[in-house]
Amino acid sequence: MEPWQLTATAAAALLRAGTLTAEALARSCLERIAAREPVTKAWTFLDPQLALASAREVDKRYTQGVLHGLPIGVKDMIDTADMPTTHNSPIYQGLRQGRDAACVGVARGEGAVILGKTDTVEFAAAGRRALTRNPHDPARTPGGSSSGSAAAVADGMVPLAFGTQTGGSLVRPASFCGVYGMKPTHGVVNSEGAKRYAHTLDTIGWYGRCPGDLRLVAQAFRLFGLDAPQGTTLAKPLGQLRVALCRGPNWQLAAPESQAALLLAGQRLAAAGVAVEELELPTGFDEVTEAQRVILMAEGRGAFLAEYLNAHGLLHQDFRDRVENASGITAPQLLAAHDLAAACRPRFDALFAGYDAVLSPAAAGEAPLGRQDTGNPVFNSMWTLLHVPCIGMPCTTGPNGLPVGVQIIGPRLGDAALLDVAALVAPVIDPALAG
Amino acid sequence: MEPWQLTATAAAALLRAGTLTAEALARSCLERIAAREPVTKAWTFLDPQLALASAREVDKRYTQGVLHGLPIGVKDMIDTADMPTTHNSPIYQGLRQGRDAACVGVARGEGAVILGKTDTVEFAAAGRRALTRNPHDPARTPGGSSSGSAAAVADGMVPLAFGTQTGGSLVRPASFCGVYGMKPTHGVVNSEGAKRYAHTLDTIGWYGRCPGDLRLVAQAFRLFGLDAPQGTTLAKPLGQLRVALCRGPNWQLAAPESQAALLLAGQRLAAAGVAVEELELPTGFDEVTEAQRVILMAEGRGAFLAEYLNAHGLLHQDFRDRVENASGITAPQLLAAHDLAAACRPRFDALFAGYDAVLSPAAAGEAPLGRQDTGNPVFNSMWTLLHVPCIGMPCTTGPNGLPVGVQIIGPRLGDAALLDVAALVAPVIDPALAG
Repeated sequence: MEPWQLTATAAAALLRAGTLTAEALARSCLERIAAREPVTKAWTFLDPQLALASAREVDKRYTQGVLHGLPIGVKDMIDTADMPTTHNSPIYQGLRQGRDAACVGVARGEGAVILGKTDTVEFAAAGRRALTRNPHDPARTPGGSSSGSAAAVADGMVPLAFGTQTGGSLVRPASFCGVYGMKPTHGVVNSEGAKRYAHTLDTIGWYGRCPGDLRLVAQAFRLFGLDAPQGTTLAKPLGQLRVALCRGPNWQLAAPESQAALLLAGQRLAAAGVAVEELELPTGFDEVTEAQRVILMAEGRGAFLAEYLNAHGLLHQDFRDRVENASGITAPQLLAAHDLAAACRPRFDALFAGYDAVLSPAAAGEAPLGRQDTGNPVFNSMWTLLHVPCIGMPCTTGPNGLPVGVQIIGPRLGDAALLDVAALVAPVIDPALAG
Repeated sequence: MEPWQLTATAAAALLRAGTLTAEALARSCLERIAAREPVTKAWTFLDPQLALASAREVDKRYTQGVLHGLPIGVKDMIDTADMPTTHNSPIYQGLRQGRDAACVGVARGEGAVILGKTDTVEFAAAGRRALTRNPHDPARTPGGSSSGSAAAVADGMVPLAFGTQTGGSLVRPASFCGVYGMKPTHGVVNSEGAKRYAHTLDTIGWYGRCPGDLRLVAQAFRLFGLDAPQGTTLAKPLGQLRVALCRGPNWQLAAPESQAALLLAGQRLAAAGVAVEELELPTGFDEVTEAQRVILMAEGRGAFLAEYLNAHGLLHQDFRDRVENASGITAPQLLAAHDLAAACRPRFDALFAGYDAVLSPAAAGEAPLGRQDTGNPVFNSMWTLLHVPCIGMPCTTGPNGLPVGVQIIGPRLGDAALLDVAALVAPVIDPALAG
């Protein structure tokens, strides 16, 4: 097995044991990238010499952080001090920022090797799409907006990558590409240095190849319950888990393969002894998806105003529309959306008196054909607005042989316990992990 | 009258008429700075040649924005592409970012001249204080954390300046320095490129010398109701205003001069024909101040983690304490704080069925002596967490002859109407404007 094939968890163990160096792992990833990048096109910036120099620097450190020696890809709307940050915008080609985004700084501080920048939908929002192709079928999208990050992890190019989610930009690509993805509770990971789209929604997340990989990054950020080095939060075995299977208010928008994936995941869990129960969300939750759209559009007014004023001709019409409030959102509509979400959040958390996790579709179906349609975020945007942690995991394949995932969801700040649940249920839900 | 003595509103009229150039106004401000800076110490970065070149560039523009030719100071934890951004941290001395913070970009796009960077409390949060002195008494603080911005506007150095408020960092210095300050509704002005401390609270605001100055900047940001070039939202005269005088749950913490200022402002309004009524906030609001502290401390955990990991020795103990959660905030406490605030927000907005504005103390008293104590934010932090717009204005002086202000507060997204109220009540409340 080549180092690039390792999960972050497996690589971390070898790095700790001293049988693998950061440099050797980075070199292996770079070789894999050299072989696959002409097809997958995951990267907007990659300087092998810079990446290897960073790896050698990590190999010399006195102390080992929780991400020691692990290469990580960074979505190209997140600042890096030593690499350009283009936002996939013609305005910012070649932009050099003076300091790392907070999440990049934390990763470096914990010993990660920033391998390069991954392609993204313009400003992680709209406009131009990434050039990235789905590693499972280059005729298809990897999803967006975290296109390059999801594809790079799926294609063996890098074991970990940062993405972001404002609607469904993290968990949906995880489903399309057949990787694991975590969107933590909103607000606990500092999003400073990532392009702002809608501050009520924007959330830094990450991709890996197993629940343990996601946990490593969560530990770096010292999420509640993960700031202590050891110990689980959940402290119960698989057979005592209670999982709520939630089709959600947009079930009719799920393609047959996504509906089948959710039911299959439920069946697999039940067969493994998990108590699986169908959950219908109470009244009010069917309006959260629309509230997310209202907030997205309204907060987009301010998000792109500077570019609108200073580089109008280089700004895609999508963003001019946001600034000009083309969707006509009014102040009362925006307040109603905020207040609905705020009222639903504690109501959703309260459901977890009876459940350890909610199981729900991760995407509307298989990855669409082409680059333009990056998929429907409707199975993610509600959870993003509710601020709850979500973990996407592979489950099955669709009619075209493309991956179809599911996601598990926890209460706000329940990230640590949700990671514990993921570690228990993933080997049951994901045939690749079981095998 | 020298150009530096003009309000932004007055200068804007001369600039539009062509009887004043951006260069002449900037030059006058620079002369004033040269005379006063040795005492006031408002600036961390000021390059006269750069400022004058920016002004000449603005003088050549084809179109005139709403801030055309107006010099503006920028708090030194807000990124500027052409000037360093130190955050008053030893970690970031000389830091050069590649692009402007969003608010700076908007100001430039609307024709403002970025004059220089103003001193701040470290990361606008804790740790090191600004060197800035109160222009009314150099033995006293101008308040913090927007120390340099408030002092520069008060001292005639610049007609406008950006600050930020996470607790009471904008409105409190306005009171201490005797200037006008606006903290808009949370989330409507993009805070990207300003150091993040607590994303639920961090708000970009600005200083000016009259309500019209505040309005100009609000127009630049196209706040709801201000995106159309003309027209007021309120459409009623002074004599039809209804103002709620609100001592608030922390009244006992106000020094006699702050209590007197509030009552005096109420008396002046009543004498001018305004319906002034005492308002006692409903149950629950007395817990919002503590909820703000909980959220501040909890969100500070992630805000300084990158610096903690990468520059531990250069990070003040205040910030290490945040990262290490020295105050011991738990996840349930944090959620309760969020949910309390979320429940109080629409309840506060609903009060405005009966009032046009709430009138409340702006600070606990006169500016304290020395540099270390920048004043108590307790009369601001509740409003910051409620996300409501606040406008601070001068009212009277205290026992030491220092300015003491008050603030008016509106409902969320009611910024435009609140500016209208400010324009009506300021000449009644502020003797300098009346005179």
